[in-house]
Formats: sequence, C-alpha cells, structure tokens
Amino acid sequence: MNQVRAEIIAIGDELLYGHIIDTNSHWISQELSQVGVRVVRRTTVGDNRLDILSAFKEAEYRADIILITGGLGPTNDDLTKPLLAEYFNTEIVEFPEAVEAITAFFKSRGREMTPLNTLQGHLPKICKYVPNELGTAPGMWFERNKTCWMSMPGVPHEMKKLMLDFVLPKLGEVFSLPVISHKMIKTVGIGESWLSDLIKDWELGLPKHIKLAYLPSLGHVKLRLTAFGHNKKELEREIDLEIEKVFPTISKYVYGYDSDTLEQSIGKLLKERKKRVAVAESCSGGYVAHQITSIPGSSEYFDGGVIPYHNQFKEKIIEVNSETLKNHGAVSEETVTEMARGVKKLFSSDFGLASSGVAGPDGGSKDKPVGTIWIACATDEFIKTKKLQLTQDRILNIRLTSVALLNLLRICILESSK
Amino acid sequence: MNQVRAEIIAIGDELLYGHIIDTNSHWISQELSQVGVRVVRRTTVGDNRLDILSAFKEAEYRADIILITGGLGPTNDDLTKPLLAEYFNTEIVEFPEAVEAITAFFKSRGREMTPLNTLQGHLPKICKYVPNELGTAPGMWFERNKTCWMSMPGVPHEMKKLMLDFVLPKLGEVFSLPVISHKMIKTVGIGESWLSDLIKDWELGLPKHIKLAYLPSLGHVKLRLTAFGHNKKELEREIDLEIEKVFPTISKYVYGYDSDTLEQSIGKLLKERKKRVAVAESCSGGYVAHQITSIPGSSEYFDGGVIPYHNQFKEKIIEVNSETLKNHGAVSEETVTEMARGVKKLFSSDFGLASSGVAGPDGGSKDKPVGTIWIACATDEFIKTKKLQLTQDRILNIRLTSVALLNLLRICILESSK
Repeated sequence: MNQVRAEIIAIGDELLYGHIIDTNSHWISQELSQVGVRVVRRTTVGDNRLDILSAFKEAEYRADIILITGGLGPTNDDLTKPLLAEYFNTEIVEFPEAVEAITAFFKSRGREMTPLNTLQGHLPKICKYVPNELGTAPGMWFERNKTCWMSMPGVPHEMKKLMLDFVLPKLGEVFSLPVISHKMIKTVGIGESWLSDLIKDWELGLPKHIKLAYLPSLGHVKLRLTAFGHNKKELEREIDLEIEKVFPTISKYVYGYDSDTLEQSIGKLLKERKKRVAVAESCSGGYVAHQITSIPGSSEYFDGGVIPYHNQFKEKIIEVNSETLKNHGAVSEETVTEMARGVKKLFSSDFGLASSGVAGPDGGSKDKPVGTIWIACATDEFIKTKKLQLTQDRILNIRLTSVALLNLLRICILESSK
Repeated sequence: MNQVRAEIIAIGDELLYGHIIDTNSHWISQELSQVGVRVVRRTTVGDNRLDILSAFKEAEYRADIILITGGLGPTNDDLTKPLLAEYFNTEIVEFPEAVEAITAFFKSRGREMTPLNTLQGHLPKICKYVPNELGTAPGMWFERNKTCWMSMPGVPHEMKKLMLDFVLPKLGEVFSLPVISHKMIKTVGIGESWLSDLIKDWELGLPKHIKLAYLPSLGHVKLRLTAFGHNKKELEREIDLEIEKVFPTISKYVYGYDSDTLEQSIGKLLKERKKRVAVAESCSGGYVAHQITSIPGSSEYFDGGVIPYHNQFKEKIIEVNSETLKNHGAVSEETVTEMARGVKKLFSSDFGLASSGVAGPDGGSKDKPVGTIWIACATDEFIKTKKLQLTQDRILNIRLTSVALLNLLRICILESSK
C-alpha cells in the first residue's frame, strides 16, 4: 500500500534566526503520524520570496499533502498569501464571508479594525476559505493534480483548531489512510548497544510491517515499535504480542510505556504499596527531590529531603558517624550507607535514598576523580549501594546520578517483600 | 557583502513522527545568527536513504555551510555516516585516533565496549575527524567545491560542544564573516511590557546600526543589543556606551550580562562577601537547592537544605512552631518566616531561604488557590517575605518560585549592610 506522504513547511524569519522554537511542526507531525500519514519532510524557510516559492515547488514534487504554517499576518513581511496566489497563478479577491467573519471577530472583542485587517479577508480566488474562529488570518485549502495544500496561521492555538476541526477530517475524506499504531517501551539502567545486543534475535524476527527504533536519552533508552496495516485493534494486538515475547529478556530494565516517566512509575509503585521515601542528597544537590516532587500528588509518598552539603551537617542532621567520614571520606560506600539509613530514620520513611560524589568540575583526586559518585537505597530489610563513574560535566553528573538513584529505588521497591 | 548561507539538516524518524522536539536546529539557528551567518533553510528528514540523499543534494545547491544532526548512533537505523560516504563517493575506513578516543571514553566510565561501538570509530575516508568528548559518535567535517559540511550527533549536549569548540571557530577561519557584536543585559523581577515602557526613550534614541530585542523567558527578560559594522572593538565600545546610558533606569533588575545566570550572579555576590546560604523548601521541592548547586564551586557558599514536605518535619527539623502551623496554615507568611529563620539557624548560615505554597494541580482552596506561594529570606538584620500568585501548572509554579526566591536572596544580599 502506498502511504500518503506529507510535507510541513514553516515560514518565518523568526524561526530561522532562532528567536522562537517551532513547536507547530512538531505537533503537526504527531497528529499526522496518529492518522497514518507519513511525514517525509519538514522544511523551514524565511520571509523571502524565492525561498518560499522553491519550497512550494519541491514540496509539490514530493508530497500528497502540504501543510504550511506562518506568514499570514497583516503586515508587509507576511508573504505566504500573495506567494500562494502567484504559485497557483490566480488573483487575490475579496471573500465576503471571510471579511464578515473578521469583522465579527473584532466586534466580539470590542476592538477596532484597521484596513489591513479587512484585507485579511481577501484570498486567492481558487482556494477554499476555511474560517479561523480564534484569529484574523483565515485558513486556505487548495487542491491541484491530486495534491492538497493547507495554509494556516503560525499562532499555535489557531493552527491546532484548524487542524483538528478541518484538516484531519478532510484528509480522511480525500485519502484512504492506512492505519498506524505506535508503542514505546521505556527502559533504564542499560545502554543502547547492550540493549540492542540483548534483543537482537527478537528484533530480527519482527514481522515486516512492524518497525523498531532505539531512542536513547539521558540514562534511558526508549524502544519504539511502529506497525502499519488496516486495522488499529489488530495492530495494537500484534505489537502487544511482540512486547510479550521480548519482555522476559528485558523486564528488569522496563519501567513503563509511552508517556510514562521514571518518576511517575516510582510514584505509582510507592502508592500501590502505601510506602514512602526520603532523600539525603550531597552531590545531586536537591535534584532527586525535585524529580520526585515534580509529579502531582507526590506528597502522598514523599516525606522530604535533606541536602547536607558539608560533613558537619551529615553528622548533625542525619547522624553520619564522624569516624566514618574521617576514615572513608564523604564519597564512600560507608558514608552513603549511613546517609541513606540516617535520612530514612529522620523522616521515619520506608525507603531512604542517598547520594555523595564529586560532581565536578573541581574537587577530584587521584583516588576519586571527578564523576566518582556513590548512591544508596536503604529499606527495612536490606541496603543496596552502587558506585557510578560518570563524566567531567557537572550538570550531566547531577542528572545521571538522579536517574541512577531513582532506578535503584525502583529496584529496591520491587525486591522488597512487604 | 554576500552573506554566508547555511542550511541545517536534522535526521531522524523520531523527529518526523513528533516523538521528540527538534531543539537542536533552533539552537544552531541562534548560534549562526550571532556570528552573522544567514540560515536560509532548515530541513528535517527521516531515516530513509533516498530522502537523506536528496536533502544533501538540495542543500549543497543552496548553502555554503551544511550542518547535519542525528543519525549517528551505533545501530542499523542510523544512516547518516554510510550515506555521507556514498554522497562523497568515498569508503568507510578505520580512524585509529577515533577508535582510541571511543575506547578511552568507555574506559573512563568503567563501561564495557561492544563491537558496534568500535565501528563508530570507522569514518568516511575523506572526512576530517572531530573528537566528541561527551559521547561515542565522532563529528565529521567535509569540504567540497567551497561548501563545508559538518555532521554531528543528535544528543544536544554533544552537538553543542562540537559547535562551540570546533564548528563556530572553523567557520570564522573558512569564511570572512561580517562583524557583528552582541551584548545581552539580563534582568529579573520585571515584565516585558513594564521594562519596555521604562526604557522607551532610550530605545528610540539608539543609533540605526544597533538593534534591540526583548527575549522573555521564565521570570526573566533579556535585552539583546546587536551592532553591525566593520570593527569589533568599536562596536563593543558603542554597545557599552548605550548600556551605560540605560543602566541607571534599570539597575535594580539587572543581575548580569551575556551568559551570566541568576544562580551564578548570586554565587558571585556571596563569594565576594564571604557569606553562606541555606534553604528550606516545601512547594519548590528541592529545585532552588538544585539551581544553586548546579553552579561549580557552590559548596563555598551553600551550606545545605531541607525539604520538610509535611508539617511534622517543619516542626521537627527546622523548629516551626506547631501553633503557627495550626493558626495560619503551612502556606502563610508566618510559617515561611519561621522556616527561613529555622533553616538559617540549623545550618548557621548568613541567609536562610524558604518557600511554602500550593504548587498544584490539587490542594487548592478558596482562600489559597493553586498557585498561592509564600517565600522568605532571613538575614542577621532583617527578613523579607513575598506572596506570589502564580499559575495552574505545577512545573511552572516550581520554576517561577525558584526565580522569585533567588531574586529575593539577591536583593537581600545587596541590602545587607555587612
């Protein structure tokens, strides 16, 4: 089956200069993927006649659907409308219905209209006028030689409404769209190459209409399965079947699916078990607590935290032994163990987490170079510790420590008998 | 003068499917604009041979500089490297220096290497190998018929380091770029419209070759001055002169320039005065401590923090009076005052910070709706408190609280007599 091919064209100098970030193209990509349209390219051009015309020409050659955002304002630097008229070799004429809608728009907001706004109701003669209820720049739909074009304003909420109310239903009418299904497996604690090695037989055995992609991010690897076919339910079933096959091999690294985050998954595990956690952070400096408390409802399972940045406060607040600090140093398995136990006790929690290390860029030594970090998780039954050897980059070390410590907590929750 | 033209190509199905947002192209656009390179197009293509090759061909026709991100992972769906070799009609050979660097990268992290990782050190024969200190996929530089190409990994921090350390200096060597000078004034504690109103006379009086832009971001507004000309030193002098003129009007909002962050500026102020700070965070959940400790060397002026997420720990650890909590509630000026004093005492610090509020989305009441947040800063001489009425969004509330609390600290440091 031939997939319907789309190209997204974003127009505006402000995008090319990097003054604003193009979230529109990202959002449109997601929506099109959901309905089985394959986005083959995204193009961004500035407010420049030749650049825009050549983008139109190239897109028409490649795609069945061309979605254009931006360049529809009332001022002279907005070129999309006149250039569409030029490209389709048509003139710009008044659309009374559009002028009326724009007039009503201003009236309903008690604002006065300028002559420039009236001109926004003048459109290329051959286009279908698509009302924009949230703004003054109308949507415009064109069809030529089996290619469909839609021009939309760059203001995100206006564009989204036009997409949902008009474009997506219209595409369903014009094209007979294939069905696509995605599912993402979220893993932590294993690198991309190792994971790939672990599941290579399964990957080779995947049916042709199911594709696998590795999406690594800080300390995590996401596995994305994409299935193409005719029946959404059937595709979802097939994907779930493949996940069932691979799951036993990777179960201990999987913390969730699709939009799940590690923090959310931990929250869910703790809530289910009615358990609570507290953290003592030295090198991670509050970031682990921040990750946990960024989840709505975390007060149900988060007792609190301490950031004893110096040895005297490790002793005073969470009862780390001064002998331990003297004999082993702050960055040691012994210290991090006492920190985890101490914070668990201070907050009467079920789980106590701790981090201590050399985040860098200074403070490293031959024995404990920058990036040497100890983490621990104490439970009622056992304590788990781990030594990390991370990077030279302070921020990266803080974030990677946080992922590792949250993953250690996840493992400890799962291994706790109670 | 002909402007140097650049095209940015981002490669990856995950971008076209909308699974991740392309912040790389945005960042690169900003950096190129800063050095006077005109970005004429941004293109995004998927992991597909023909799409990638045609993007290369079109870009070579249009641009003097082509910057490519993504598609450099060790797995089979990563096509950038083989396709660059195909496009430049060259073979992929071992670069011993690259293999060595990758091996060292794994060694320094105590991780084992897979054969796939070794292959990441095999590169197109005609490219210049550019070491990537933060990851395993090397940068690759090509030159052909006066067009320069750079291929970089899609991982943002790896790409950024390659751009700053290698690409931008290299572009300055290869092309004769026009002279541009930028300076950014960083402000906090005042909104964009208010600031604009305050400085409108100065703005109108700016010389024609100096442009002003307002760049608002979370709780901050940056004022960027850009001067165009022939002599860097002269431009810098002119910009400084303009800043001298406007400074008296906005001095109390200015915390720094260019890459200065609020956290850095506070660190500098504290170090100069040999003062130290501690924080007690309820609604901000560790984020303020994280912001402070993300700065290298912060252990010199950060004593530590406490996150007493529940009332009993506010009483137990930082001595908030149970009567205060009972009479005024946790989210009150009285409680946040005692928290700031209590944490200052616990850590024997010069400044004690505190936050308490309803971060949301739940927990609001009629009197204290979601977004109601109290902050405080205690010093030896005085205490300052402030009530914030923020948004419905939890993460946004946490971040805005952090900016407001750090700004309160900045003001208290400046007003302290000692």
